Amino acid sequence: MKTPPGFTGADALLATAAAAGIEVCFANPGTTEIPLVAAFARQRAIRPVPCVFEGVCSGAADGYGRVAGKPAMTLTHLGPGFANAIANLHNARRGRSPVVNVIGEHATWHLPFDAPLCADIGSLARPVSAYVGTIDSPAAVSAKTRDAIAAARVPPGQVATLIFPVDFQQAPASAKLEAPFPVPAASIPDAARIDVVAARMRRSPTALLVLGGSGLTTRGQRAAQRLAAHCGARLVSETFPSTSDRGGGLPSVLRLPYFPEPAIALVAAHDPVVLAGALEPVTFFGYAGIPSCIARTGTTLMLARPEEDAAGALETLADALGAPAVPNGGRVEAPPAPRPEAPLTPDGVMAALVPRIAEHSVVVVEGGTLGYPYFASAAAARRHRAICLSGGAIGFAPPAALGAALADPGRPVLALTGDGAALYTAQALWSMAREGLPVVLCIAANRTYNVVRTELTRAGTAVTGHAATLTSLENPPVDWVSLARGYGVAGERTPTFQTLCAAVDRALASRAPHLIELTL
Amino acid sequence: MKTPPGFTGADALLATAAAAGIEVCFANPGTTEIPLVAAFARQRAIRPVPCVFEGVCSGAADGYGRVAGKPAMTLTHLGPGFANAIANLHNARRGRSPVVNVIGEHATWHLPFDAPLCADIGSLARPVSAYVGTIDSPAAVSAKTRDAIAAARVPPGQVATLIFPVDFQQAPASAKLEAPFPVPAASIPDAARIDVVAARMRRSPTALLVLGGSGLTTRGQRAAQRLAAHCGARLVSETFPSTSDRGGGLPSVLRLPYFPEPAIALVAAHDPVVLAGALEPVTFFGYAGIPSCIARTGTTLMLARPEEDAAGALETLADALGAPAVPNGGRVEAPPAPRPEAPLTPDGVMAALVPRIAEHSVVVVEGGTLGYPYFASAAAARRHRAICLSGGAIGFAPPAALGAALADPGRPVLALTGDGAALYTAQALWSMAREGLPVVLCIAANRTYNVVRTELTRAGTAVTGHAATLTSLENPPVDWVSLARGYGVAGERTPTFQTLCAAVDRALASRAPHLIELTL
Repeated sequence: MKTPPGFTGADALLATAAAAGIEVCFANPGTTEIPLVAAFARQRAIRPVPCVFEGVCSGAADGYGRVAGKPAMTLTHLGPGFANAIANLHNARRGRSPVVNVIGEHATWHLPFDAPLCADIGSLARPVSAYVGTIDSPAAVSAKTRDAIAAARVPPGQVATLIFPVDFQQAPASAKLEAPFPVPAASIPDAARIDVVAARMRRSPTALLVLGGSGLTTRGQRAAQRLAAHCGARLVSETFPSTSDRGGGLPSVLRLPYFPEPAIALVAAHDPVVLAGALEPVTFFGYAGIPSCIARTGTTLMLARPEEDAAGALETLADALGAPAVPNGGRVEAPPAPRPEAPLTPDGVMAALVPRIAEHSVVVVEGGTLGYPYFASAAAARRHRAICLSGGAIGFAPPAALGAALADPGRPVLALTGDGAALYTAQALWSMAREGLPVVLCIAANRTYNVVRTELTRAGTAVTGHAATLTSLENPPVDWVSLARGYGVAGERTPTFQTLCAAVDRALASRAPHLIELTL
Repeated sequence: MKTPPGFTGADALLATAAAAGIEVCFANPGTTEIPLVAAFARQRAIRPVPCVFEGVCSGAADGYGRVAGKPAMTLTHLGPGFANAIANLHNARRGRSPVVNVIGEHATWHLPFDAPLCADIGSLARPVSAYVGTIDSPAAVSAKTRDAIAAARVPPGQVATLIFPVDFQQAPASAKLEAPFPVPAASIPDAARIDVVAARMRRSPTALLVLGGSGLTTRGQRAAQRLAAHCGARLVSETFPSTSDRGGGLPSVLRLPYFPEPAIALVAAHDPVVLAGALEPVTFFGYAGIPSCIARTGTTLMLARPEEDAAGALETLADALGAPAVPNGGRVEAPPAPRPEAPLTPDGVMAALVPRIAEHSVVVVEGGTLGYPYFASAAAARRHRAICLSGGAIGFAPPAALGAALADPGRPVLALTGDGAALYTAQALWSMAREGLPVVLCIAANRTYNVVRTELTRAGTAVTGHAATLTSLENPPVDWVSLARGYGVAGERTPTFQTLCAAVDRALASRAPHLIELTL
């Protein structure tokens, strides 16, 4: 390709990224990203999506990556702008979601002067990034961009961060780009490992399959169902399953419980504990007197690590054990509908929502209040995909819903979250309104940081005084309908089953973003 | 002191901090901070203030530190919670504001299991912290706490970060605490340096005094006025003055311009350029073909570094030059009032606000739209203190106003910011409502990232297409009155001078937080 006049380092980055399949950039640029902003006009294969807070950029890229199976870009401004993206990048890292961050940096010749916005971007980026690179010459743009994208596409996905000094963005560059790389497939666990699992399962009727990664795809779950039917194995998912197919005849795969006692009790009844795309389960926090590892020593067997082809390994295992095919499961009963005027309960919310989950839609899950009843009843819905907060950094659902909606245009997205979490990144509503996306954001407004209250009670601390006020969102009560309106999004408050059903129907019919504050 | 029963590491931290003068903790705790939450009930000298986003905690601590002259604590949850605080800690670092961050960490025995919320907190903290410590045993709590606070109190202030594993928070501790340390005074520049400046100023009628740090206290400005009157020196402040006294007869000290050409032109007319509490001025960004250093080589003289006693150095210098005392300046004319029904302009906004700035109140300044006209007219107000965004990380003003109001209870706080910046940390409104603070938050709603548009134009990029959409807040328009209501704060939109005056009067009379969206 002949280099067109005015082709800059910024063009080289965008053209290389476009050739590698990147289509969307969640952006909050500043002055050190101006050549990239200008280059979007010339490199039209990548569409920039403005976000009014960087935590929205990163959460959206996470949601996009999980649904599209390939990375979006984020574009943020120097160290402080990138810093705002870190919490949701932590979630992306834990969820093994592919993300490519591009951060504008001061001109290399300006860096020694330690201007006010200077900061050590690498130190900020390393805790959340599998790859951190700095473009160190105009000639290096395309190769470094390719390296970053290749790192992000290591299956199932990684966070890669590229620091791009503005003088190299602006410098003339060659349009001779690095060839796109072949995207690697997930590696297949070696046969010996599968043989060990098969031998143990042949001798034991009490196997537990802990599914994660591609073990939670439709293909993975089908193979797991064969093992369950043939060997009596029980199926659970890891506690925070990054991405899972649900409903439409798939089994009801509950999550390993969050709290250690029920998790340990569940696992203790099983041997072996076969990890199929999941890591060795550990407690979310340390609890004095309770082991960090949930399974007894010697009971776990790694069939496939999260980054490996767990679905393929489950199929090979099912074949090895002679497990026959099983018919597609029938439709599971939806949760029973309460009286129309009944005050809402979490189960009542699911009775309204589950029948309204559209085929092939995406459900974004954050928080326990709606998360537990959702996973308990998701099998009754039409086939859809669930993406779940995976790193514990709250503020995931609103931006992840934005990203999911852009990854699969036209498919409705239902996001379930709590008020405490949604307050972190409510700015995502603005981008949803701007893009006109069909997202229904349901906020369980219990006006507390409820999980912290539960943990306080566990720890023997009375939820009174400061312990109450530090976990309360009651004073003043947050008015979510007003917040939604502030960001240009329609909202309503639904105190009963009937009003919720009507609100969801209206929201889905509108094909526009809609916030529903659930009075719980 | 005899150790009371149930005295834990968490008690030891809070008691040590209280003995060192800490009174307020801006908190967003989670499960790994539960013993600290519980200890607030026993160690009552420190008041926890709940914030619904960690960027509010850190911005509030910055505002508090600048007004109180001593640190507040922040309490955040593990790496991802702390990450949300980083951007405003960057501002605190650049503003030399004292802040003590306490971060709960997993139990030490749980850390090796790499639970979902594990992250390298130290790597996140170092870019914004002069001190990063980890409490590594229950016996070390008091000493490490003292070290962190001592680091924060190195004049004029630093950011100190302390990582506190939850098992050591919970462990029984001794109430034998480290003795409070003497807070050091700012060091006085040595006489030789002052002599060099005096010799140069004696020979030159074109000196420029660049004031920063304590050079912008009332005492510093009084001494600078003597030098201006006696030697013909011109006074400017650094471009982003962290904290400065304004009005009530103090001189009108304009800021060194933000853009390099006017800054260079201003400085070029002067020799020597005497730095009194300010660093060598550098351009905010690098601009091709323009030097990073604003002053010509050989013209700058360091009278006092920002961390030194610039006010004392200016007095010594004025004495050395025989500059006599000057009378307190008279009242400067306020900006002329426009017609009541005139549409608002930035100058019109100041005509309404400046006469309404109460004696000894605090004005928080972020962004250029209101920042420039404010500094140009602040001398006409009653005596007050201005605190200004110092690190370029937007989202400073709402939380800094929260912190400033708590640092000086009862004194009104006026915060000036732009819509783009305020969208970052609007959650501060919730804490203002909760605490019932007399804050008037004025938002210049020009519905653009205007500074980026200016920089785009400078760089020769037309503000059309993506360059326009990536800098626009127009679609949808943010409705600030609804956002304020969402957080429990009264708000109104003022399109004219008359409606603005009435709104500010109502806001000040309410003694409660009030948001004013300025239609500009």
